[in-house]
Amino acid sequence: MTHGIAKRRVAVVGASGFTGKEALRLLAQHPHVEVTGVYSARSGEASAAETYAGALREPVSASLDLDALGTNDAVLLCAPHEASATLVPQLLESVPLVLDLSAAYRLRDAAMYPRFYGFEHPAPDLLEERVYGLTEFAREELRNTRLVACPGCYVTSVLLPLLALRDAGLLTDDDVIADCKSGVSGAGKAATGVTHFASVHEDFRAYGVGTHRHEPEIREQFASDRVYFTPHLLPIFRGILSTLHLRADGDANSVREALRTRFEGEPFVSVLDKGLPAVSEAQTSNRCVLGVASHGDRIVVVSCIDNLVKGASGQAIQNLNVALDLPETAGLEPVHAAIPGWR
Amino acid sequence: MTHGIAKRRVAVVGASGFTGKEALRLLAQHPHVEVTGVYSARSGEASAAETYAGALREPVSASLDLDALGTNDAVLLCAPHEASATLVPQLLESVPLVLDLSAAYRLRDAAMYPRFYGFEHPAPDLLEERVYGLTEFAREELRNTRLVACPGCYVTSVLLPLLALRDAGLLTDDDVIADCKSGVSGAGKAATGVTHFASVHEDFRAYGVGTHRHEPEIREQFASDRVYFTPHLLPIFRGILSTLHLRADGDANSVREALRTRFEGEPFVSVLDKGLPAVSEAQTSNRCVLGVASHGDRIVVVSCIDNLVKGASGQAIQNLNVALDLPETAGLEPVHAAIPGWR
Amino acid sequence: MTHGIAKRRVAVVGASGFTGKEALRLLAQHPHVEVTGVYSARSGEASAAETYAGALREPVSASLDLDALGTNDAVLLCAPHEASATLVPQLLESVPLVLDLSAAYRLRDAAMYPRFYGFEHPAPDLLEERVYGLTEFAREELRNTRLVACPGCYVTSVLLPLLALRDAGLLTDDDVIADCKSGVSGAGKAATGVTHFASVHEDFRAYGVGTHRHEPEIREQFASDRVYFTPHLLPIFRGILSTLHLRADGDANSVREALRTRFEGEPFVSVLDKGLPAVSEAQTSNRCVLGVASHGDRIVVVSCIDNLVKGASGQAIQNLNVALDLPETAGLEPVHAAIPGWR
Amino acid sequence: MTHGIAKRRVAVVGASGFTGKEALRLLAQHPHVEVTGVYSARSGEASAAETYAGALREPVSASLDLDALGTNDAVLLCAPHEASATLVPQLLESVPLVLDLSAAYRLRDAAMYPRFYGFEHPAPDLLEERVYGLTEFAREELRNTRLVACPGCYVTSVLLPLLALRDAGLLTDDDVIADCKSGVSGAGKAATGVTHFASVHEDFRAYGVGTHRHEPEIREQFASDRVYFTPHLLPIFRGILSTLHLRADGDANSVREALRTRFEGEPFVSVLDKGLPAVSEAQTSNRCVLGVASHGDRIVVVSCIDNLVKGASGQAIQNLNVALDLPETAGLEPVHAAIPGWR
Repeated sequence: MTHGIAKRRVAVVGASGFTGKEALRLLAQHPHVEVTGVYSARSGEASAAETYAGALREPVSASLDLDALGTNDAVLLCAPHEASATLVPQLLESVPLVLDLSAAYRLRDAAMYPRFYGFEHPAPDLLEERVYGLTEFAREELRNTRLVACPGCYVTSVLLPLLALRDAGLLTDDDVIADCKSGVSGAGKAATGVTHFASVHEDFRAYGVGTHRHEPEIREQFASDRVYFTPHLLPIFRGILSTLHLRADGDANSVREALRTRFEGEPFVSVLDKGLPAVSEAQTSNRCVLGVASHGDRIVVVSCIDNLVKGASGQAIQNLNVALDLPETAGLEPVHAAIPGWR
Repeated sequence: MTHGIAKRRVAVVGASGFTGKEALRLLAQHPHVEVTGVYSARSGEASAAETYAGALREPVSASLDLDALGTNDAVLLCAPHEASATLVPQLLESVPLVLDLSAAYRLRDAAMYPRFYGFEHPAPDLLEERVYGLTEFAREELRNTRLVACPGCYVTSVLLPLLALRDAGLLTDDDVIADCKSGVSGAGKAATGVTHFASVHEDFRAYGVGTHRHEPEIREQFASDRVYFTPHLLPIFRGILSTLHLRADGDANSVREALRTRFEGEPFVSVLDKGLPAVSEAQTSNRCVLGVASHGDRIVVVSCIDNLVKGASGQAIQNLNVALDLPETAGLEPVHAAIPGWR
Repeated sequence: MTHGIAKRRVAVVGASGFTGKEALRLLAQHPHVEVTGVYSARSGEASAAETYAGALREPVSASLDLDALGTNDAVLLCAPHEASATLVPQLLESVPLVLDLSAAYRLRDAAMYPRFYGFEHPAPDLLEERVYGLTEFAREELRNTRLVACPGCYVTSVLLPLLALRDAGLLTDDDVIADCKSGVSGAGKAATGVTHFASVHEDFRAYGVGTHRHEPEIREQFASDRVYFTPHLLPIFRGILSTLHLRADGDANSVREALRTRFEGEPFVSVLDKGLPAVSEAQTSNRCVLGVASHGDRIVVVSCIDNLVKGASGQAIQNLNVALDLPETAGLEPVHAAIPGWR
Repeated sequence: MTHGIAKRRVAVVGASGFTGKEALRLLAQHPHVEVTGVYSARSGEASAAETYAGALREPVSASLDLDALGTNDAVLLCAPHEASATLVPQLLESVPLVLDLSAAYRLRDAAMYPRFYGFEHPAPDLLEERVYGLTEFAREELRNTRLVACPGCYVTSVLLPLLALRDAGLLTDDDVIADCKSGVSGAGKAATGVTHFASVHEDFRAYGVGTHRHEPEIREQFASDRVYFTPHLLPIFRGILSTLHLRADGDANSVREALRTRFEGEPFVSVLDKGLPAVSEAQTSNRCVLGVASHGDRIVVVSCIDNLVKGASGQAIQNLNVALDLPETAGLEPVHAAIPGWR
């Protein structure tokens, strides 16, 4: 099956965080990718290479050498937002394809960066050029770009059903409550008061209402300021469950049918025949699992993903596969990582 | 301080579940209550009395003797819904005050029982007579009744802020999304597929959209069919966090101020000066902790309670205190069971 | 790489529990196995086949047809102990290889069954014939048997280091404290008071001291009545960490070196250069990860496995691979399922 | 009951960590203590006073004024080890009673401090003078001292049964395996790689074998180098369960009876009639709950405490009560904080 596909050379820059590690975990199983190196995004810092050497098939080098990276077919960039903003133009000088997992190129409107990310964007022209990599809605563009901005984790879970329903003409209006809940890995690997076991275990909280960085991203992509995104922190490690409260022209059956039609044949989007998904149905896989219920004259859509996979590194690899003309599910199988209900 | 208050005699019927146990835990610290007995709600079943004997100050007897119960000032009834529906009229023949923690007398509309609870209500006239015991909104009635229906756990968390805001005339309309999350103790003590550790730990799910029994209760009390209640199951033992998405005449400051004004002096309702509460700020106490945030032209109100305390046994004792003219916080102190942030 | 290996036909009997599901999860990725069917071990019971149909490559049939099973190369039997005891002789009439994951054939001494398992053993002669499938110590026998009794989960974690150290002549005596801790999946899928979230979460307990069924199994295999096995229940889903307190001729370095020598080249046993493993280093993989520390004149060996993989279904497949002359790691890769420290 | 007991004035120094907070939680319910102030142990650092003001009955001042502290009857010192070592002599110049919750005065042998705590002890003579406050074994001394070193959390759980059994002459030898497991609060409030949710949740590990600071403390108090203490980190917030493997002159019944005899009338030590305790039976209370099982020719004793209460702040208050001639359970009631099995 895999005959005739030459291995693509891929380097990972920035592997000290959860998304970098997850990318390495997945790439280690990718049949058509050779990980050529793992580099620290911060010069002078010890590379994560040593840590992961055992998991890689090829020797790795530690220091970030922009010239040497040019021998790769692609670079996965898992650096902090501001570091990525600067690194991307440098990488593009020699690398034919950069997939950025940070938010540095997600927003087309450069004016948002000072406000939501605290820095002036260094390359606003690239914001015009980049492809926003919500794979299921961007395949054509992905095949013709050198820069992919991989969507935010919450954003992915919200946009997949919303864009499908809007495209189907089923939304009565664009007024949507997105009440979203994420596991702690979304808060990153830094040890802080927020990520301390004592702050999370047997607890639950909302945060960032009206100020979270994923709200402008959702609104820009959905082209509406009437999506109200409220994030919460779950006492679990992985996974996002987003509860969307909306109004549709039709009942749950119509909405479910529209989602089924839109995502038929999609390897990574499932629509439940009945009931609503639990986050465990998506954990560790690249799947987005959707469920629909009627709620009087409203509709509830529940969308589950693994924030580190479909919400980050998995979708980045899915984008890599599309952009490099590899089988889209390569490295992301088994597609149903979890047998439903299995844990 | 406690001089001159004669101890009231209180029996607990039905103590095998979480709410019965929680009631006993709290009553064991109540300075003005003597627990005269703990009885099984199901005849022929071994009483929980033996289990809790060590925790009680007085000897207990095991079999349910309706006549003997007549020597009490009040009975706390922690039985299953249908059993309570039948027991209440029997108890009222000899007991001057019954506080029912089940849903058997919560809904005024008897027609709801076959649909939501699966039984024909045996005493619809008592549905007219009973007082709905959301304490902060029912003190006068509580002083003149023999039957108190203690509100549902989710319902308590939702109604406290909603009724306050409607009374203040601040709600633009009655269209409210109540996206609510509860710990597992809300699912009861029965060992089922739902409460198995493997179904809950490192997982999260929505359930009962449009069919949960607390929706008609909220709607009846709020007198509107436009409250959309969506419950979720959290991987924690105790606590409810309800996220209310609504529209108000005014911003977060106005809403916060209205809540402060309404609940000033209330021992068990707190309104945060800023930020949104975590569920740990209410766990193990009888408090409802409220926080408010602006969200564009909407308002988010977060309401946290402990489902077993303010959502069940604590509120029942609060109602008992009011009805028996005891200090309202007796047995429920320290009011701030948890030092904020303490866990 | 996989050319020339004909697919082996394997059926799974008993898939309603955790080990059956785990076996299916792993076999779905096995390059040389075709799962021909999933059958309920209990006649008249709805098969699990429907549940897993989506995860299987081949259609499945539901009722247990002993004749039809004869077309398979092997059967994985994931039934309850007593059911397995009866089924194995029946299966052996037509099936060339049975791998039993229950305890029904683990103990050579038939007299133990009434005492520890509550039933008289129906086929004591098969107890003589069966191979005890602790793979790393049984390869030769595995290639020449029709019945494999797969070891208990705790037992596997304890025996791997203990047998290695005894074979190396390093144990001062056979007096060993095995203080073991297991996740809840070891308690099975049945919803009971023990597996209720409220009994496990934020809790921890010892159980079965002197009475647990794995103690006679360890003692029989280690041929000593001086291994003291104490199990505990961890508030996690998967994994076992066994802390072995023993005395050795030599310090931690000697013990570590002996383990390294014994397990060199073993794909599924790792010995840490320094430090002690966390259970996360073994979770979801078929690995046993060992660490050694000096403790005065004693030695502490910590052994971690995933109870559902190396402690059950993974080791069963490892045994299947050896018995059917397939590559031993087939279906169990990536061998390092988890990048160390990754979660 | 409380008539005629004048309130004692107590200050808390160092309240930013878990033990300081827990002390404040308990003292807020103490009927005979007035908390006069909460002070930061580190000069120049913002006091925790503001945080806890709402929980205190009296106004608090922020800066550490050694002279002003002299008006107190006692000071609870919840500072880091080295800070405490220095502060204690300073406090003793004006304060009649200091209860130190750190390890700074736990070890009588000053030579241990450079090795296990990394500092030269500044007041070795006070190591001779101080009382080691394992309350049940130190009441007489506690009534005649000005300095109490409160025992380590693990140490308390291990010593209570061990000292009782040695005093009863029941131990065959002093060779004891103490396989101990603690919740995360034992690792402190600092956000580190160790306390990150991702390092603890769904994980379990041993640590500090042969190097943990509580081993020399146990060995000094038990006067034997043959107690082998192995700590593990549980994915829970509170509680310690210590599994002691030992040999006794007698079976489980004899050992249980000896423990019962020794602890009869003790308000905070319980010996189970049968079975072994879960950590939930001690959580949030000042209790130590003991269970005994025979294990062949060995005995297993399981000892459960709450590391923040009996293992730290609760025992400190118990010591305070004894030293100041207050009722020993004051501020620590209900003695059975948890109804057994209640959660």
